[in-house]
Amino acid sequence: MSVIIGQKEYFKGIEKIKFEGVDSDNPLAFRYYDENRVVAGKTMKEHLRFAIAYWHSFCGDGSDPFGPGTHHYPWDVASDPRQRAADKADAAFEFITKIGAPFYCFHDVDAIDQSNDPKEFASRVQYISDIFAKKQAESGVQLLWGTANLFSNERYMNGASTNPNFEVVAHAGAQLKSAIDATIKLGGRGYVFWGGREGYMSLLNTNMKREREHFARMLHTCVEYARRNGFTGKFFIEPKPCEPTKHQYDYDSATVIGFLREFDLLSEFGLNLEVNHATLAGHTFAHECQVASDNGMLASLDANRGDYQNGWDTDQFPTDIYEWAEAMAIVLRQGGLAGGGINFDAKRRRNSTDAADLFYAHVGGMDTIARSLLIADKILTHGEMDKLKAARYASFDSGKGAEFEQGKLKLEDLYQIATEIGEPALISGKQEYLENLLGRFV
Amino acid sequence: MSVIIGQKEYFKGIEKIKFEGVDSDNPLAFRYYDENRVVAGKTMKEHLRFAIAYWHSFCGDGSDPFGPGTHHYPWDVASDPRQRAADKADAAFEFITKIGAPFYCFHDVDAIDQSNDPKEFASRVQYISDIFAKKQAESGVQLLWGTANLFSNERYMNGASTNPNFEVVAHAGAQLKSAIDATIKLGGRGYVFWGGREGYMSLLNTNMKREREHFARMLHTCVEYARRNGFTGKFFIEPKPCEPTKHQYDYDSATVIGFLREFDLLSEFGLNLEVNHATLAGHTFAHECQVASDNGMLASLDANRGDYQNGWDTDQFPTDIYEWAEAMAIVLRQGGLAGGGINFDAKRRRNSTDAADLFYAHVGGMDTIARSLLIADKILTHGEMDKLKAARYASFDSGKGAEFEQGKLKLEDLYQIATEIGEPALISGKQEYLENLLGRFV
Amino acid sequence: MSVIIGQKEYFKGIEKIKFEGVDSDNPLAFRYYDENRVVAGKTMKEHLRFAIAYWHSFCGDGSDPFGPGTHHYPWDVASDPRQRAADKADAAFEFITKIGAPFYCFHDVDAIDQSNDPKEFASRVQYISDIFAKKQAESGVQLLWGTANLFSNERYMNGASTNPNFEVVAHAGAQLKSAIDATIKLGGRGYVFWGGREGYMSLLNTNMKREREHFARMLHTCVEYARRNGFTGKFFIEPKPCEPTKHQYDYDSATVIGFLREFDLLSEFGLNLEVNHATLAGHTFAHECQVASDNGMLASLDANRGDYQNGWDTDQFPTDIYEWAEAMAIVLRQGGLAGGGINFDAKRRRNSTDAADLFYAHVGGMDTIARSLLIADKILTHGEMDKLKAARYASFDSGKGAEFEQGKLKLEDLYQIATEIGEPALISGKQEYLENLLGRFV
Amino acid sequence: MSVIIGQKEYFKGIEKIKFEGVDSDNPLAFRYYDENRVVAGKTMKEHLRFAIAYWHSFCGDGSDPFGPGTHHYPWDVASDPRQRAADKADAAFEFITKIGAPFYCFHDVDAIDQSNDPKEFASRVQYISDIFAKKQAESGVQLLWGTANLFSNERYMNGASTNPNFEVVAHAGAQLKSAIDATIKLGGRGYVFWGGREGYMSLLNTNMKREREHFARMLHTCVEYARRNGFTGKFFIEPKPCEPTKHQYDYDSATVIGFLREFDLLSEFGLNLEVNHATLAGHTFAHECQVASDNGMLASLDANRGDYQNGWDTDQFPTDIYEWAEAMAIVLRQGGLAGGGINFDAKRRRNSTDAADLFYAHVGGMDTIARSLLIADKILTHGEMDKLKAARYASFDSGKGAEFEQGKLKLEDLYQIATEIGEPALISGKQEYLENLLGRFV
Ligand SMILES: [Co+2]
Ligand SMILES: [Co+2]
Ligand SMILES: [Co+2]
Ligand SMILES: [Co+2]
Ligand SMILES: [Co+2]
Ligand SMILES: [Co+2]
Ligand SMILES: [Co+2]
Ligand SMILES: [Co+2]
Repeated sequence: MSVIIGQKEYFKGIEKIKFEGVDSDNPLAFRYYDENRVVAGKTMKEHLRFAIAYWHSFCGDGSDPFGPGTHHYPWDVASDPRQRAADKADAAFEFITKIGAPFYCFHDVDAIDQSNDPKEFASRVQYISDIFAKKQAESGVQLLWGTANLFSNERYMNGASTNPNFEVVAHAGAQLKSAIDATIKLGGRGYVFWGGREGYMSLLNTNMKREREHFARMLHTCVEYARRNGFTGKFFIEPKPCEPTKHQYDYDSATVIGFLREFDLLSEFGLNLEVNHATLAGHTFAHECQVASDNGMLASLDANRGDYQNGWDTDQFPTDIYEWAEAMAIVLRQGGLAGGGINFDAKRRRNSTDAADLFYAHVGGMDTIARSLLIADKILTHGEMDKLKAARYASFDSGKGAEFEQGKLKLEDLYQIATEIGEPALISGKQEYLENLLGRFV
Repeated sequence: MSVIIGQKEYFKGIEKIKFEGVDSDNPLAFRYYDENRVVAGKTMKEHLRFAIAYWHSFCGDGSDPFGPGTHHYPWDVASDPRQRAADKADAAFEFITKIGAPFYCFHDVDAIDQSNDPKEFASRVQYISDIFAKKQAESGVQLLWGTANLFSNERYMNGASTNPNFEVVAHAGAQLKSAIDATIKLGGRGYVFWGGREGYMSLLNTNMKREREHFARMLHTCVEYARRNGFTGKFFIEPKPCEPTKHQYDYDSATVIGFLREFDLLSEFGLNLEVNHATLAGHTFAHECQVASDNGMLASLDANRGDYQNGWDTDQFPTDIYEWAEAMAIVLRQGGLAGGGINFDAKRRRNSTDAADLFYAHVGGMDTIARSLLIADKILTHGEMDKLKAARYASFDSGKGAEFEQGKLKLEDLYQIATEIGEPALISGKQEYLENLLGRFV
Repeated sequence: MSVIIGQKEYFKGIEKIKFEGVDSDNPLAFRYYDENRVVAGKTMKEHLRFAIAYWHSFCGDGSDPFGPGTHHYPWDVASDPRQRAADKADAAFEFITKIGAPFYCFHDVDAIDQSNDPKEFASRVQYISDIFAKKQAESGVQLLWGTANLFSNERYMNGASTNPNFEVVAHAGAQLKSAIDATIKLGGRGYVFWGGREGYMSLLNTNMKREREHFARMLHTCVEYARRNGFTGKFFIEPKPCEPTKHQYDYDSATVIGFLREFDLLSEFGLNLEVNHATLAGHTFAHECQVASDNGMLASLDANRGDYQNGWDTDQFPTDIYEWAEAMAIVLRQGGLAGGGINFDAKRRRNSTDAADLFYAHVGGMDTIARSLLIADKILTHGEMDKLKAARYASFDSGKGAEFEQGKLKLEDLYQIATEIGEPALISGKQEYLENLLGRFV
Repeated sequence: MSVIIGQKEYFKGIEKIKFEGVDSDNPLAFRYYDENRVVAGKTMKEHLRFAIAYWHSFCGDGSDPFGPGTHHYPWDVASDPRQRAADKADAAFEFITKIGAPFYCFHDVDAIDQSNDPKEFASRVQYISDIFAKKQAESGVQLLWGTANLFSNERYMNGASTNPNFEVVAHAGAQLKSAIDATIKLGGRGYVFWGGREGYMSLLNTNMKREREHFARMLHTCVEYARRNGFTGKFFIEPKPCEPTKHQYDYDSATVIGFLREFDLLSEFGLNLEVNHATLAGHTFAHECQVASDNGMLASLDANRGDYQNGWDTDQFPTDIYEWAEAMAIVLRQGGLAGGGINFDAKRRRNSTDAADLFYAHVGGMDTIARSLLIADKILTHGEMDKLKAARYASFDSGKGAEFEQGKLKLEDLYQIATEIGEPALISGKQEYLENLLGRFV
């Protein structure tokens, strides 16, 4: 990948970020992420498939519910929407190539201003995706996934695909069509559904059953359209329990998998799991990953972290090697992410107003995850942890335990067996031992 | 139902609790629960099917993690386990008939002391269930549901049906057999599974996939046994997200329904929803009820409440008419609880040490729910709330919206429609209006 | 108070809201709030001192972190900031007089657009406060409290009075001066400090000690200025634990009182307690009120409610009569709010887009609190609850208990007494009994 | 310190735990804790002052609210309470000396069975403390702090020092006297108050003001007694927000400091901060430490960790080097813990039933904290983090900023300054940069 600068260099004074190793004192160098280093049979680049999120990094202005934006972007000044979009693309690909991420992700409205006229908006998306295509070709950067923003426009205030008003559902469909078209054109590896308004503010005015059915209907409609038009990637659903709604239908891994199974959508979909959404749902990130992996649905990750003392989606950059080492071990065990990558759905703090802060943030995030991959690899190579876990279940690998698994025992048989074997010995779960073992590799 | 006193009267000085109406100043009278009052076509007794929980009311000693019991029961003094069990049954049926609940529920180990010898324990359960049968006949009280306690015995410390050691699974099966036998003998309307240890303490030592499969296998085994032995009731699963485990597999309604669908168990099961478990899972009670009802799975309720400032299962007696009015409206809309009833899985506070406190607690709980039933009935009779909700979805009842529901529209059609109709009007969700409407009936 | 319409009637078709009683079916009438009804010796109007919050009701556009505003105000269209401010004042006083609230509250930047030039901004505030003065005179509406918004402007991103950069602190001071001037001019009963950015985003870059000292210094500076310039009202601090910061210094009642005591500010200040801030801090609203009242600091209330399943400041309109009945009982026991009133710091949902929704929301909120006042009055009039509580502490009213309270007993005395009296009897806390008693009046 | 074995060796096959360094594969060796290693001018042993908690390690049986104990101790079998206590002391000092902790801590009731007769209990405490004294002399192990358990006995169900019944307060005093006597005798460095029942279950039956006053009175009484009897150590309060009560008066650092200031107790007390209590109160551990340190009150630490998905006091062994590195940096900056040490108030999981698990747990915990001390030392030695933080506040070190700090500026001065300087530049808080810097040393 080569750094590409557009009409203007936006991040002057910052060169391509290099790997310098753990002893480096350079805050603008990688200490762990060495894209060509081979771990468990693949390069780090192939394992991690890092992607930059267009929205936070090139659109997010630092606003929060108590104040407007603090990040003022030099690429966000032209008055013509098409020109502004092109300038932003210049900045984006400059950053992506300087940081050295092989992928990026975007919502339609990140790329170019929305228009309430579906035709005009489709034309704008076409315009900017042509530019993206050229940038991709020039740089070697690829599209991890595309998506449509069906939550910001005021028309979606009561839901998009789950809006009680069919007219809004039609507009959601229109936007989905154009975003899918762009994703196909750009060779996106996946297409993501995140249903920010697909939930309810109050049960008093909501028919949850009908709304969920509409959501499933829209997913089927999109799959049919995308496949017919040559999309060969994966569809992803990104669970989140709440915010901006009180309750969002794609609550967590288990809920989404249940939904996909109910509406016969399992085979086309995988999950895109976000750390902060896991913790908002009351789960560890590892839990969400394991649930998905157990179902063959762990496909892609949104990298960030939440704040355990704050109850909203803080989307901070990842820093915790425990959190990520456990996740990467699950990914390694299943042989890699199924179709997706690791996308930085993370934003600088509102008061991180230097241009360099965007680089620090991503350098820290990429290093955290690269280091965690190394830890996970050490855990699996060492092997004791997985061996101990497997050994706990050995009684089901043969004999009566195996017969139980195969459904050959009746309840009377279990009663009979229990009577014969007497009281089983207590077998320690060895949790502290295993925590120490994990700590050894961290 | 007639009050029945056993060998000894345990609640001396307290007579059968009567309905005296809202103007009564008597703390030992019902102000709302009038079992013969007809609401929406059925008596309150038929609607609510109140059950007393054996464990909290006759076994629970008020201990907590920071101190032993404060409730010292006169029926808990005999040294012989069978005698002690019989004495407790006397106290229990005295209370149940004095409070006027038509049902009760119990775990095997509530009824009589456990024995580690499955045969001896089965014999004990048989002994006490014979006594229960006589008490039922004498009083008219019926068994709402039975269940096996598969969480207290130390052998279940790593799980019962999901224990990594098959020997423990066999013991769980033995206990299940004897509890199902007793439930059938006593004409239980249901049989409940609450998997207190069916989850994990740490993912580091857990194969979640295999454990969930074992759990499904055990459910199938129990269903087969129970049906073969004449059980005609419903099976219930009671969701709870955590405690005592870090994570429990029966997390919430959506998770359990997904699990039952995955393992082809949907048709035999319904949900027994507990208020405090809903709130621990990050949901309102109404949400859990609605999810279950939308899936035809709202079968039974465990009445209590949690504490929004404390993060454990406080199991306090219900007091909130908002919480229960919303739930009762869902129950009324679906035509009543599917097979179950309303069981007081609630305990007096550790410092509520007077015998009368057990009565105050139940009187308050039963009145709260009876009053909520009246409110729910007023809401449905008034009708505006349900009418407003239905009207929001009218665009799907005919025309293009109906075609969308029927799967007749392709994504291009939605794009075309959106282009033609232009920007839809914003339609208020009227949440505050509806909250006021609810408030009018509270 | 008379309805006053400005240049233009903004809420056409809605007349002054009247009290019609509980049997009214009119959604635009009060069912409980009868301003002239005498309760516990004062009219409801005198007890409750309702105030309308300028920011939510006339400025809040329904935006949230996932989408821009949905509320488009006809008074928010003029291009000149002074004209726009005047139009907004027309709308505001029309609403305030139609809803019949005797008070209002505002931040400087609610009233008129901010300017980065302190002189220009001071002049604007002067301009609009002249208009407010005329409106107050014309309508009889009064200012409950004024305040400066020291959190929205990007310059406050690292704090206002606690900003590490003194230049920003100076700007905070400039804004405070002008807001205090306006409050004095308009006869405000109080002046509120809510420190939205007075906290930290990360401890890694924060000197908490120095920041808290700067905050105390600024409060002293403001008090000195205001008193010197004739302010006779109360100063209020409004606690909130977090959001937008990770941690806010004014965490909760206990923390703020400790801070005021530490920096010798207790005598000039009272607390303005908000329901949703209490719950975000892990407390009930009643708890926060009681802590404040016990310290003689319960001065004013921000009426709203949070969502127990969502972890941010939802600022919904109050609906819960339990929550408010407990709070109003505390207020009645202390003889009324000390200097403040009840301000609706509450906002319609983003999807409540009808003009009438603003009325429904306030009607529901005012009725909820009025009804709660009636309940609280019944509780106190009935008297049993307070009598039971007092009786629990009777052993300290005389004898050895009283000596203990007076500090006359040494540890050896307690040992001696314990040895003599033997094991004390267990005395029930009667919590369920008292909950039923509360339920009787709800 | 030498390993001391009593009548019987309880941990056979486990020798004194040695430091073997990070490359060791031995799960029963330290990889970081090298007691003689000098860091920042002191040995690790002197810095960390590790203490073993008698209650969890030698009394805790693994019971939880859903099941009785799973840990069956060979030292817990004698029928005579004095003999049983002596056997436990043998086991305790064997463990303490094998693990190599220089300190231990205990509650009176951990050491020996309680008796309801204060005289008999005082005599028992005297008996066991004589044994402890001998063990201390023999081994070199010292008492970090003593305390009285005022929460388990049923008499404390409504509070101990805050009980509404003075008779119970007297019993609390009796128990305090005997625990203080033992602490003095054993040369305890501190005496801890943890008020497990000093809070409320319901505000409906509670006079919070009077209860808090009683609590302060009791503290004064204890301080007077202890000083008069020669106690030269520190008094500590250990904050905890709730559990077993709904609300505990010693909520968090800020609340306790406010309380101590209000009742003129600041000078005699310091705080003993527990990680899990910090997180239950909605704070990071670092926050609680910093608040205490800023007030000169950071005196002692209870080492453990909570679970961010579970809302009760899980008291797990510490594993997180981020959490502890931030805390240790605060400790180093203030020149060490003020009078206390680091006590493992942590318990093995209920299913960690091997004797060795107690060793694994402590080895992991001690290594986590030792490693964190090394990280903290590197942070301070490197110095950039503290330099950057200090630089943010430079504008207050001289000029107008310094005048502001000194109280020399009036509000008009600030207005004038703001007008003159114009709009301040935005200065990045550099949070991500600092997080990376922290990450570099972890
Ligand atoms: Co995401
Ligand atoms: Co997020
Ligand atoms: Co239950
Ligand atoms: Co429960
Ligand atoms: Co407020
Ligand atoms: Co708020
Ligand atoms: Co502790
Ligand atoms: Co703890």
